[in-house]
Formats: sequence, structure tokens, C-alpha cells
Amino acid sequence: MAIVSVNARNQFKGRIREIVEGPVISEIDVQADGVIITATITTRSVKQLKLAVGSEVLALIKSSDVMIATLRHPTAGEPS
Amino acid sequence: MAIVSVNARNQFKGRIREIVEGPVISEIDVQADGVIITATITTRSVKQLKLAVGSEVLALIKSSDVMIATLRHPTAGEPS
Amino acid sequence: MAIVSVNARNQFKGRIREIVEGPVISEIDVQADGVIITATITTRSVKQLKLAVGSEVLALIKSSDVMIATLRHPTAGEPS
Amino acid sequence: MAIVSVNARNQFKGRIREIVEGPVISEIDVQADGVIITATITTRSVKQLKLAVGSEVLALIKSSDVMIATLRHPTAGEPS
Amino acid sequence: MAIVSVNARNQFKGRIREIVEGPVISEIDVQADGVIITATITTRSVKQLKLAVGSEVLALIKSSDVMIATLRHPTAGEPS
Amino acid sequence: MAIVSVNARNQFKGRIREIVEGPVISEIDVQADGVIITATITTRSVKQLKLAVGSEVLALIKSSDVMIATLRHPTAGEPS
Repeated sequence: MAIVSVNARNQFKGRIREIVEGPVISEIDVQADGVIITATITTRSVKQLKLAVGSEVLALIKSSDVMIATLRHPTAGEPS
Repeated sequence: MAIVSVNARNQFKGRIREIVEGPVISEIDVQADGVIITATITTRSVKQLKLAVGSEVLALIKSSDVMIATLRHPTAGEPS
Repeated sequence: MAIVSVNARNQFKGRIREIVEGPVISEIDVQADGVIITATITTRSVKQLKLAVGSEVLALIKSSDVMIATLRHPTAGEPS
Repeated sequence: MAIVSVNARNQFKGRIREIVEGPVISEIDVQADGVIITATITTRSVKQLKLAVGSEVLALIKSSDVMIATLRHPTAGEPS
Repeated sequence: MAIVSVNARNQFKGRIREIVEGPVISEIDVQADGVIITATITTRSVKQLKLAVGSEVLALIKSSDVMIATLRHPTAGEPS
Repeated sequence: MAIVSVNARNQFKGRIREIVEGPVISEIDVQADGVIITATITTRSVKQLKLAVGSEVLALIKSSDVMIATLRHPTAGEPS
């Protein structure tokens, strides 16, 4: 383990709500403020970081990995 | 433009708070519920999607791009 | 589900040709015009988007995730 | 430079159609069969690989970086 | 397979030390000079590239996928 | 800033050797043991983390972002 400081953007502090453990990759659902973040990480990391339901974690995302889409609002004549 | 349905996880709906426009890449800060998401996308996409401060957008992230870290709490004897 | 507009670059419209379903991650092969795109997404997303062989989908890729390599042509004296 | 064999999926062979050179990152548009792939790579890589308009290149994408969306077709009562 | 030249940065030449094969995704541990690189790739790619323990490979990483953190050194009064 | 523990794989400890600062994205070259890692991060992060030539940092990479290629050795009849 290494103890590091990371930049303050794109961090979601929360608690693990669910772990779906696969043979190589596991899915981790993190309940943050009003939002659920899903991460897929190696099952080996799940074990090394001793992650479990309820663990307090930080979900980190690089800004180059964020895609931007525009919402499409229904126009007149369309069902809302 | 294509109109698509995307999965409901790892979506952050918000409004653009700031755009730092570079020659090739621009930084987009999205103010979502209680959190700021920073995205770096091509300046060409900024123009094609007609993004501006105040635009309502969706920030999308693949679950394979989310990293999980554990928070380190100060232990006894450590300054908090 | 959210209905969104995404930028027109790096989109491949096609039909799902094969799904290899794993416990956490599934592999999706999309047959687009003259090319097969392979995506690995969560099995949960496969179910939520109701993906099946034959489904019409859009494969989307961020430009920061595209790597560029130069082709190496055999030189004189090398087997072609 | 290293000479390597890469897997046959998610490869787009084409010619560079446009380079937008920035101070750190450049945008490369590759014209492949019936599709344009946009890549953003370091300007340093552009120079080291001697990339120019017309260069024959391979655009490579990891399958974990491909997002799948479903197309939304207009339903009855919606403008097409 | 395609034979390509790739840029010289962010390459780690080494031998495969362990393969954890899953139904869709496999984990590959590459022993490079003094460091182990872990990659998760499709099990289909493992088979197509005929990867096995001992295979000489190149681990490649895009510079946009590298995150930078600062190390935190223990201060006076903290256990080292 | 958040203080976190991250998993021990795919970490490269080193010192910053060069920073090429752009308006939005900067390129950071990290000199680790016998290898140079190049990262592209936002210029804003460079400033917030107070990165400079000589700073001791950790370069972190998710295993899903590592691509594996096989080296191609010259065969008989090919120039070495």
C-alpha cells in the first residue's frame, strides 16, 4: 500500500453498497451523496484493499475519462 | 448527432460552470448535486455540441475507468 | 435510462453479432460497416439495456482512448 | 520504437486526414473505410512517429474503452 | 495480427509471470525490470496472441491513462 | 486534497524530470527506476498538487488501461 495525496476533483466519497465478485473482475457499487458510482476493479484488489459492504472508500476518475453528452428534452408533440 | 439511450449508472446531470478552452482540448467543469465533475474533451466537441456556461449536460463515465481507494484515517498519536 | 445527444465522431453504428456473458463483465461484438468492434461492459448493463444478438447499437469511443501506431511494411529482403 | 504484434480486434487502418497540433496534445483525424476516427495523442508522439497528413496508420482501441448505447427510434406521435 | 511501430514512451518489456484466466477477462501479470505490471485483457486476446507464462510481451499504456499522486511522508509526531 | 491508500500494483515511484505546460493539459515525465513514464494531466492539477521538476510522485495506472502486445523478433532472412 502507498499513502498518497490526490487532486480534489472527480472524487466521490461514499460507502460500498454492493460487491458482485467475479473470478477476475468484481463490480463495486459505491453509495455517495445522492448518486451511485459503479467501479469494476480486479478481484485481487478487492481482497488486497479488504473491501466489503459498508467500507468507506473514495472513487476516483481521471478527467480525460469523462464523456459529455447533452440532454435531449422532449419537444412539443412528443410524449414527455 | 445521434440520439441514444445510455445506462443509468455513472451519470451526473448538471450545468456547466466553467469552460477553459485550449487549442485542442478544453476543460469542462460540471456542477452536479453537491459535486463538481471535471471533463477534458476536444475543443471541436465543445463547439459541435454548442456547450457554454450554464448548458445542461450529462457527464458519463465507464465503470472500468473508476479507481477505488481507501480513506486513511489518522490513528492515535497522529495529528488529525 | 437517459436520452442524450452525443458528438458525431468515433461512433460505430451496427448490430450485435455475439455476446459472451461472464459473471461480471460481458464481451459484446458489434458488426459495423466492414469492421467488428469489441466492447467489454458490465453484465448488469447488458441486462438493463436488454442487449441481445441482433440489437442495433452504437459503439462510442472517447478520442483520448484511441492509440495511433504506424504500420510497418516489409522491406526488401524480408518475407512479405 | 518497438515492433509489435497486436490483436486483430478494434483496429482501424486508414490515412491521416487532418492534424490539429496543440502545444501538448494534438488531434489526429484518421480516414478509415467509411468512418473517421479521432484520436488525441501527445504532440511529442506526433513528432516521434513522424505523423503527417496522408500517413498510413492504425488506430487501436482497448475493448474496455468502448461504451455501448442503444439507438432511440422515434415512436408514434413523435416527429421523426 | 498487424505488425506496427509504437511510440517508445510508456512501454514495459517483460515476461508473463502469471495468468488468471476468467470466462471473459483475464489478468496478466508482467514481470518487467524491478516492477510488476498488471493488465486485464479479454480472454479471447490471451488465446489469439497465444500468451502463456514466460511469454515475452510489451505492456503499453496511453499517457492520458496515467494518474499522478504525490507521496505523503510522515511528519514529526506521526508513526513512520 | 484527500489522503488515500491505493493498491500496490501498477505504481511507479519516481521524480518529475520534465513538465511541458499547456493551456489546459500538461505533459509530465516521471523518471522511475530505469523507465520514463509520461502522464498527461490537467494544468490545473499540476498547480493544485504544486508539481515541479524534482517532485517525488507516484504514477498510477488502472490494469484495464494496460494493453498487451507481443514482440516480433526478426526471422531468418530478415535484417536484424
